[in-house]
Amino acid sequence: MNFASDNAGPVHPQVMEALRRVNEGYDHGYGNDPETEAAKAALRALFDAPQAEVFLMPGGTAANALTLGTLVQPWQAVYCSGLAHIHVDECGAPEFYTGGAKLVPVVPGDQITPEALQKAWAFWDTGDVHQPSGGALSVTNTAERGNTYTLDELRVLFDMAHSRGLTVHLDGARFANAVARLGCTPAEMSWKIGADAVVFGGTKNGCMGVEAVLFFDPEKARGLPFRRMRSGHLLSKHRYLAAQMNAYLADGLWLELARKANATCAMLVEGMRHLGVEITTQTPANLIYFRLPLRTHETLQAKGAVYYHMPEPGDGPDDMVRARLVCDWNLSEDAVTRFLETLKAAL
Amino acid sequence: MNFASDNAGPVHPQVMEALRRVNEGYDHGYGNDPETEAAKAALRALFDAPQAEVFLMPGGTAANALTLGTLVQPWQAVYCSGLAHIHVDECGAPEFYTGGAKLVPVVPGDQITPEALQKAWAFWDTGDVHQPSGGALSVTNTAERGNTYTLDELRVLFDMAHSRGLTVHLDGARFANAVARLGCTPAEMSWKIGADAVVFGGTKNGCMGVEAVLFFDPEKARGLPFRRMRSGHLLSKHRYLAAQMNAYLADGLWLELARKANATCAMLVEGMRHLGVEITTQTPANLIYFRLPLRTHETLQAKGAVYYHMPEPGDGPDDMVRARLVCDWNLSEDAVTRFLETLKAAL
Amino acid sequence: MNFASDNAGPVHPQVMEALRRVNEGYDHGYGNDPETEAAKAALRALFDAPQAEVFLMPGGTAANALTLGTLVQPWQAVYCSGLAHIHVDECGAPEFYTGGAKLVPVVPGDQITPEALQKAWAFWDTGDVHQPSGGALSVTNTAERGNTYTLDELRVLFDMAHSRGLTVHLDGARFANAVARLGCTPAEMSWKIGADAVVFGGTKNGCMGVEAVLFFDPEKARGLPFRRMRSGHLLSKHRYLAAQMNAYLADGLWLELARKANATCAMLVEGMRHLGVEITTQTPANLIYFRLPLRTHETLQAKGAVYYHMPEPGDGPDDMVRARLVCDWNLSEDAVTRFLETLKAAL
Amino acid sequence: MNFASDNAGPVHPQVMEALRRVNEGYDHGYGNDPETEAAKAALRALFDAPQAEVFLMPGGTAANALTLGTLVQPWQAVYCSGLAHIHVDECGAPEFYTGGAKLVPVVPGDQITPEALQKAWAFWDTGDVHQPSGGALSVTNTAERGNTYTLDELRVLFDMAHSRGLTVHLDGARFANAVARLGCTPAEMSWKIGADAVVFGGTKNGCMGVEAVLFFDPEKARGLPFRRMRSGHLLSKHRYLAAQMNAYLADGLWLELARKANATCAMLVEGMRHLGVEITTQTPANLIYFRLPLRTHETLQAKGAVYYHMPEPGDGPDDMVRARLVCDWNLSEDAVTRFLETLKAAL
Repeated sequence: MNFASDNAGPVHPQVMEALRRVNEGYDHGYGNDPETEAAKAALRALFDAPQAEVFLMPGGTAANALTLGTLVQPWQAVYCSGLAHIHVDECGAPEFYTGGAKLVPVVPGDQITPEALQKAWAFWDTGDVHQPSGGALSVTNTAERGNTYTLDELRVLFDMAHSRGLTVHLDGARFANAVARLGCTPAEMSWKIGADAVVFGGTKNGCMGVEAVLFFDPEKARGLPFRRMRSGHLLSKHRYLAAQMNAYLADGLWLELARKANATCAMLVEGMRHLGVEITTQTPANLIYFRLPLRTHETLQAKGAVYYHMPEPGDGPDDMVRARLVCDWNLSEDAVTRFLETLKAAL
Repeated sequence: MNFASDNAGPVHPQVMEALRRVNEGYDHGYGNDPETEAAKAALRALFDAPQAEVFLMPGGTAANALTLGTLVQPWQAVYCSGLAHIHVDECGAPEFYTGGAKLVPVVPGDQITPEALQKAWAFWDTGDVHQPSGGALSVTNTAERGNTYTLDELRVLFDMAHSRGLTVHLDGARFANAVARLGCTPAEMSWKIGADAVVFGGTKNGCMGVEAVLFFDPEKARGLPFRRMRSGHLLSKHRYLAAQMNAYLADGLWLELARKANATCAMLVEGMRHLGVEITTQTPANLIYFRLPLRTHETLQAKGAVYYHMPEPGDGPDDMVRARLVCDWNLSEDAVTRFLETLKAAL
Repeated sequence: MNFASDNAGPVHPQVMEALRRVNEGYDHGYGNDPETEAAKAALRALFDAPQAEVFLMPGGTAANALTLGTLVQPWQAVYCSGLAHIHVDECGAPEFYTGGAKLVPVVPGDQITPEALQKAWAFWDTGDVHQPSGGALSVTNTAERGNTYTLDELRVLFDMAHSRGLTVHLDGARFANAVARLGCTPAEMSWKIGADAVVFGGTKNGCMGVEAVLFFDPEKARGLPFRRMRSGHLLSKHRYLAAQMNAYLADGLWLELARKANATCAMLVEGMRHLGVEITTQTPANLIYFRLPLRTHETLQAKGAVYYHMPEPGDGPDDMVRARLVCDWNLSEDAVTRFLETLKAAL
Repeated sequence: MNFASDNAGPVHPQVMEALRRVNEGYDHGYGNDPETEAAKAALRALFDAPQAEVFLMPGGTAANALTLGTLVQPWQAVYCSGLAHIHVDECGAPEFYTGGAKLVPVVPGDQITPEALQKAWAFWDTGDVHQPSGGALSVTNTAERGNTYTLDELRVLFDMAHSRGLTVHLDGARFANAVARLGCTPAEMSWKIGADAVVFGGTKNGCMGVEAVLFFDPEKARGLPFRRMRSGHLLSKHRYLAAQMNAYLADGLWLELARKANATCAMLVEGMRHLGVEITTQTPANLIYFRLPLRTHETLQAKGAVYYHMPEPGDGPDDMVRARLVCDWNLSEDAVTRFLETLKAAL
């Protein structure tokens, strides 16, 4: 019953097998090898974007922060949700990689609305040198509290950003789970609605540690290869990143694993709603936030359920405590069943 | 009737005279001159802080940002009000000078409360590497919307910060006006209640361009001389900064000018309250925020009143428009009287 | 007999008078005032560059570093001489303002040659992500050891830089002195031979503290206004910078002062050569480097000559000690005569 | 016959096996797992340093740059050889991670001498704010051109650094090869002679991608955990880094592989010297630099020998071309024999 995080479980066997497969003989380092070429080609095909610039990196913090550092000038702003991972969970990575750009939280929750974005711009994006100018809009789908933006919701935000001269970053740590829930294609959730750069996460969905960054307009990716090198994210034995990605893409493994995780999560949601638990995530993919009395949490955790409490800014000492359940690709239905039984007994 | 800013008016004649006086012969550059030594000694005497490290700089943005860059590590946070000048009006200067530290707005308004600070820490200062750790508390007195913290209010906040291992930065762009309103000494509003570093502003109160930074614990100032040099704020002809400061301190000119500005402002407040205008600043020193219908603003401005509209985050399109009046040391009572008459006619 | 630096002496009376003149009434801050507009117009006229973007700043370190930060990406290089002020005397200002670009010294001395530049590129500018890519060429005229590049020498270097895709920065802390020596126009020593941005220094030549930065292609200046703000170099009472510059430009004062300084220096050089002193500066404007036995230096300094010793990298403990004499605009012929007499007696 | 780099070959089977072994069940992310605890304990034991702070990272650029960013302030200097990897091959990573510290090349070659270090300090480490102050000495053993410092040579340099108040960074990308050549212990080549922090490389010697950083004084490591997080080098699935390191340390695999690589290299050196080839590396571990006519290189490469040309600063167009041969742990004696035969035929 481990719902702690989608980075807590094992790597998928096909990814492990790919590492074994690529571990033969000699090849060029730093991505100048056929395995990497194949991964880039596969990603371009998956996104139906033959012109895209593609980069692999070992983790999501770097993938997001390097992307923002490339899209945004130090004197600009990144507009994001108040709970965005880049804002609250990466210890200032975007500030480091952008050279000190300003992260502007647009809403307190995890999903940006057009109205809130307009208000944020009215205050911050003045055109005057006293405030950061323009920059990027950063949206996460699946969002941090588990909600999924629809394609229409995203398109409206992205169009607004472009109209104002901002670029659009899509944090896709759980890109696959959002695509699985929406039933769309990767292209439909990225460049077709206006994303300039997307992080296509592998690490949380069965890989050991690899994220792909795609820039759909190569011109916008200028400098990223050098930034990646100087930040230490161009791994010398790059083929081992590429091999993971190739296994992840082969035969749609990425989507299959996301669908499985989402299905487990849907089962969990249904069971918890049935038990009357308050679930604050409205449109979940593979994770949810919920609230329970502290003593119920304690009972569940004593019985072996592993998950984190997740207070939000302004949460006071309260009997009802916010927490998170994450379903990774490897979580069994049995674990969900046991969790629901334990929960029922604990309520 | 110019209420636009306390940097819009002239330099005080005694400051101009000091520049003329120091413009004789040759001396060492970069602050290695007797005029600078005299300024440092005078500042230490004024603050009753013989051990303080003292630095002069040509502007307040640099003074604040260099101070924060010295107090705070790149991976830490600066807790400030949501309207703090360092947060909303310096185009990311603290982010630049700290190497990307996170500015955390504690309250939406201009004055931090202990409760809000506690809540901000509960969310941000987790001790975990995913969030910025510790850092500094930055407080401004006179605050951005014109309010003045009492010494007790400051002491409570500063004690809280120290208990948590944070350092304390006091942005004193209008230090003199706050001291004048509170009727305290510079020491009482700084190190005696726990400020680690203070910016003692001169530019807004009669100087041409000079701010003093005082670090009361020399150990905490480590590196600032090098940071000042590499950021270009160690002026080569430093004696001209020092001369301004020496004139500003001589015979309490700094306090006299602040008192005059505050008195003019008090007259303005009384007159406006009498006319029923909504003044949102509760404890003003030399500036106030107020709200009037847009058409009344337009009438006033058409009649020659110069001042800025000051929307806040979340202000919608609204008939009642927020604006600011600043009284500088040079503003005449006559200008206030004329403004009040014009206002009366416009209402 | 003060030859310490051209920032050691007084400000020219006409500059002081301009400060007094501008100190009337109220005006907008941050450069939105007529005095600033006049200064920009005068600079554009002086450089015969009506389209140039013009910025005023209070010091040369900031002017150079902000210019480089605008011209160069963090992952690029700045090619300069091994004695360039930006490399050895600004405590890493360019590294700070560029976000960590690499300064590559091209020659050990103060003047770059085409051959040395080619060799530097062969090693550093590989196009591979392991090395910094492209960037800028930074040249100083008058150079750090007092030598003056000819226009032809500059043109060759600038053409090379452009051919390779680099931009060109001209550090003109002593721009006026070089123009005076070369007998050319400001345009001829800047954009007409390919400089992309130039720092036109005022501080060392009679001003209190003001430098102008000109970008001849406005597109290349993108972001500089924001960088200047966030680094604290957009002074609020900006008209006092502008007034200095206006006085400096009026009736060619800048050139008159430089000619005077150069003439004094020429007199000094002639006298010292006549006495057999080794002068290492070949083509001096207003400063020279020379070598004397340590005991001779000591005698001169004991008799009241003020100047600095200037060791170079690799100088060992040696009886012959390198030193520098700077002639500022205010230095009298009498001081030179006395120095030469003292020197004669000391040899 | 692949001598291109020690990152070109396969990962050792025992390391692969450890990845398989750790790929079971669920565990905490970000290094809060038993596999990581075991790796830290093993590293502390290996270095006989129970108090050391230990960090794992996926690559050497990050390991070096994060270490320097922790040891050095932005306004300080890093003294290194003119060919140091951190200076010439990491695209400015140290500048990025230190916030713009100055890298000062002490010698043109790959090994620093006490005399050269003294001269570098005489020019750069003036104590004046115009120059970067103090900082760190960075030494690489095995050095970049294949030479190995003796323990005595290192001790002298490290003592000098400490006497001057600098800290000492040991870049150990090929730490194991140097230890194997010197026949000393890891402690003897690090803290016992004064290294403050060491990068203990795994990637080039049989791992997939893992480097350990050890700080022997925990106080000096302050902030590194946060810097690692915000730079994206704290991998979420951290146990896969730890498993590699554990396999690498088990039963002295790290040393066995280094010895094997060094032995192959020694065989190569002997054979080449016998053939009269000019080898410029004097004290090789597992790599050498040598010079041959261009046409001989071309013949060798046409016959299947894979290696890189390695020009140095100042190398002109020349018939004799510098190149590098690297022997990784997996290189066979047979490959060496074939190379020598091919070389013999080509000469």
